[in-house]
Amino acid sequence: MEKQKGITVKKEDNFSEWYSQVLDKAEITDLRYNVKGFVVIRPLGAMILENMYQLYEKEMQKKNHKPSFFPTVIPEKNFKKESSHVKGFYPEVFWLEKIKGEDRLALRPTSETAMYQMYSLWIRSWRDLPLKIYQRGQVFRYETKATRPLIRGREFYWIEGHDCFETKEEAEAQVQEDISITEKVMHQEFGIPFLPMKRPSWDTFAGAVYTIGSDVLMPDGKVIQQPSTHFLGQNFSKAFDVKFKTREDSEDYVWQTCYGPAPSRILASVISIHGDDKGLIIPFTISPIQVIIIPIYNTKNKTKIIKKSKEIKKELEKLNIKTEIDLSEKRPGEKYNYWELKGVPFRIEIGEKELNQNKVFLFTRATGKKEFTDINNIQKLGKEYDFNLLIKAEKSMKGKIINCKTKNDIKKVLKDKKIARVNFCSINKEGEKCAEKIEKEVGAEVRGILANKNEKPSGNCIICNKKATNIVYIAKSY
Amino acid sequence: MEKQKGITVKKEDNFSEWYSQVLDKAEITDLRYNVKGFVVIRPLGAMILENMYQLYEKEMQKKNHKPSFFPTVIPEKNFKKESSHVKGFYPEVFWLEKIKGEDRLALRPTSETAMYQMYSLWIRSWRDLPLKIYQRGQVFRYETKATRPLIRGREFYWIEGHDCFETKEEAEAQVQEDISITEKVMHQEFGIPFLPMKRPSWDTFAGAVYTIGSDVLMPDGKVIQQPSTHFLGQNFSKAFDVKFKTREDSEDYVWQTCYGPAPSRILASVISIHGDDKGLIIPFTISPIQVIIIPIYNTKNKTKIIKKSKEIKKELEKLNIKTEIDLSEKRPGEKYNYWELKGVPFRIEIGEKELNQNKVFLFTRATGKKEFTDINNIQKLGKEYDFNLLIKAEKSMKGKIINCKTKNDIKKVLKDKKIARVNFCSINKEGEKCAEKIEKEVGAEVRGILANKNEKPSGNCIICNKKATNIVYIAKSY
Repeated sequence: MEKQKGITVKKEDNFSEWYSQVLDKAEITDLRYNVKGFVVIRPLGAMILENMYQLYEKEMQKKNHKPSFFPTVIPEKNFKKESSHVKGFYPEVFWLEKIKGEDRLALRPTSETAMYQMYSLWIRSWRDLPLKIYQRGQVFRYETKATRPLIRGREFYWIEGHDCFETKEEAEAQVQEDISITEKVMHQEFGIPFLPMKRPSWDTFAGAVYTIGSDVLMPDGKVIQQPSTHFLGQNFSKAFDVKFKTREDSEDYVWQTCYGPAPSRILASVISIHGDDKGLIIPFTISPIQVIIIPIYNTKNKTKIIKKSKEIKKELEKLNIKTEIDLSEKRPGEKYNYWELKGVPFRIEIGEKELNQNKVFLFTRATGKKEFTDINNIQKLGKEYDFNLLIKAEKSMKGKIINCKTKNDIKKVLKDKKIARVNFCSINKEGEKCAEKIEKEVGAEVRGILANKNEKPSGNCIICNKKATNIVYIAKSY
Repeated sequence: MEKQKGITVKKEDNFSEWYSQVLDKAEITDLRYNVKGFVVIRPLGAMILENMYQLYEKEMQKKNHKPSFFPTVIPEKNFKKESSHVKGFYPEVFWLEKIKGEDRLALRPTSETAMYQMYSLWIRSWRDLPLKIYQRGQVFRYETKATRPLIRGREFYWIEGHDCFETKEEAEAQVQEDISITEKVMHQEFGIPFLPMKRPSWDTFAGAVYTIGSDVLMPDGKVIQQPSTHFLGQNFSKAFDVKFKTREDSEDYVWQTCYGPAPSRILASVISIHGDDKGLIIPFTISPIQVIIIPIYNTKNKTKIIKKSKEIKKELEKLNIKTEIDLSEKRPGEKYNYWELKGVPFRIEIGEKELNQNKVFLFTRATGKKEFTDINNIQKLGKEYDFNLLIKAEKSMKGKIINCKTKNDIKKVLKDKKIARVNFCSINKEGEKCAEKIEKEVGAEVRGILANKNEKPSGNCIICNKKATNIVYIAKSY
């Protein structure tokens, strides 16, 4: 490998190049697969992704979702059943070559139209409700925009939850529960803060009544939409005839929601937000290797030190800590750099001194802290590690939401890689023109209003000067 | 739900109907998805499948395989690089509608041609070897034969391992290690015995030097191929230019193997082999619910008994036992039948008597045994449960391999739902005619020779009467 091993740009100076180098040099992805928009996820990326899936699925199940697997292909006729959905997704669909005598098939871009026809068979009465199902799997979208690994691709790794309820109220409560799942997993466990944004009507998911997206501010000042949750009302249940017998013995269509976290995309935020100029910083809880042991030996004490390293590995594994020993022929310094690039939270160096004592020399990746510690502390230190990443990310985000009163204010805020908070006429249809003006004149989007807090504006719309009915957040976006 | 709830046929009388009813009534799959050959896997099926994936992946990782994710689509030109591979798979490929200016894409039927081009970029020297990678995911094959849920479908859930080595010997040792993974997971953990069969040359995987399939005898007397492992020699490495610098500083192509267990298909064997006339029997280790608690109460003691049930659930969960309580409005008898149909290993009934004692009344699904026991025993009983399923399956298989000396012997053995063991001229090219005769005259296949034992024939080929060089196994197959 002749290429330079470390990251050669600073994250702050050139985030885009930094991101590409980290993915490549830490061996998260490989972009050289010979189909546009499709990438290979290498072992380190795949193992982190798998850990993310497991935590996410655990939380989905805790909230009474059951896993299922629906086919990857969907007949064209299913798509056509819900008219706004078909309009929204049709241009993005990969189609299979038609087989004589069979329906034309799509690779699923999302699975409403695969799942809801089955729901109409499964749901008979209010006793069958709520029905809460999710699946993990890949979805496919024919992206024409420039693709970026993990951020925007033609295949991504996701989870989709699809829930049915007796009443509108229960369904809307589910939308809030979905936000709380994002909060629990993406924010609390992966350390990624977000703004839950109720999207403007013109930016609602195809077929939904309303959409709440989770906006994460990336280091380049652009926001990226992470898990979104949609209140579907009865749009799809009417299209797919998902009816039930009510408690009053009449008939009604179910009320639906859907929720779509993409672990591959969330991984992009984890890498971008926590990483530093040396490379990856992976939260302890999702790191495939939590402790790397580097034996420091000479020809005389090599055997003893390797033996000691293996003992410590065993002890750590008893404490449920994922541990590896680097036994390669590289020099210690090279090993340090390698595992720092790979984002392993802790490094233990085992040398002559460690042979006769119980404490170990521990290096902490995110802070550079070095200390002697008892290995029984490491689980606790791991929790602290993740908590500190979270606090750091929150602090960084907090200072970056800035109230603006003029278009020039907004421009300045965006230039500083921040989010603007402004009075706005309306996120309903009548505000679309003002949003278009913002897009044209400051090059940013009206992302929506806070979905978990009722923020009241006092003043007039920053564009049309009519009385504001909303406080909206404006940002550049991916 | 008007349909009859229990299984209405005996497994022995009509296996095919029994299998369909079990999948449907225990809610493993739903065949009503509106695309031929694609099924929906319902929560119970999905959770078992996920548990199977986890045990399988754990063992793959233990044997030093690393997970990765490769794209689901493969460009047509990749397929064409290895000539026997393209011949074998071309007719089974689902193609995507061509996008202007881009290559024609296939949905992967298997991933050699996706992965090996990347291997050629990753492997430079003997220091990069062995390279052992697997991925989990779905593959797609355009089946024209009749499909059967989990057994033969157009989409299936699998794992594929793809390994590269410096030498032929290491690669062939990997083939044996693959068999040992099948042995460890499918046989020891899922309780499914198999015959590792080195396939005749005419039945080798497209592009492989030789193939070893794992034949499992199903209750209808037909064998089904479970995980197969292939020695690829240098066929693909030459086609995809996967070269490395040897220890002697020369250049060579890597030696390759691949291995393909399909958890969805193994699930078909688990269901078929362990199940009985009441429905599913799921091994304890992969059962999403290991203990179902049925509270038996009257209006007077209801509160107390439900409270006690919840306490027991908590205690069981502390012991890492997956537990649910059935709080539905059904009568106890209905609940018993329901959970027996669903194959939950243990049932605990909590009534008035249990309020004041520490032991619980435990019913064992597979044996019907009823006993009072301490809940601390249940993990141990779970291990015994699986061991007994394994022993039962082994016993059943053992009596079903019968030495045959004539075609009439074979016919009789097959009629009795067994496997014939016969002297045979050769599993190389020159034996193909004799195999064709067997297929034509007794309606069964020469499955191959035992791959983990050198069985020496004494006598002549049962068909051509030439000196036998192999002992082969003959069976009807899926």
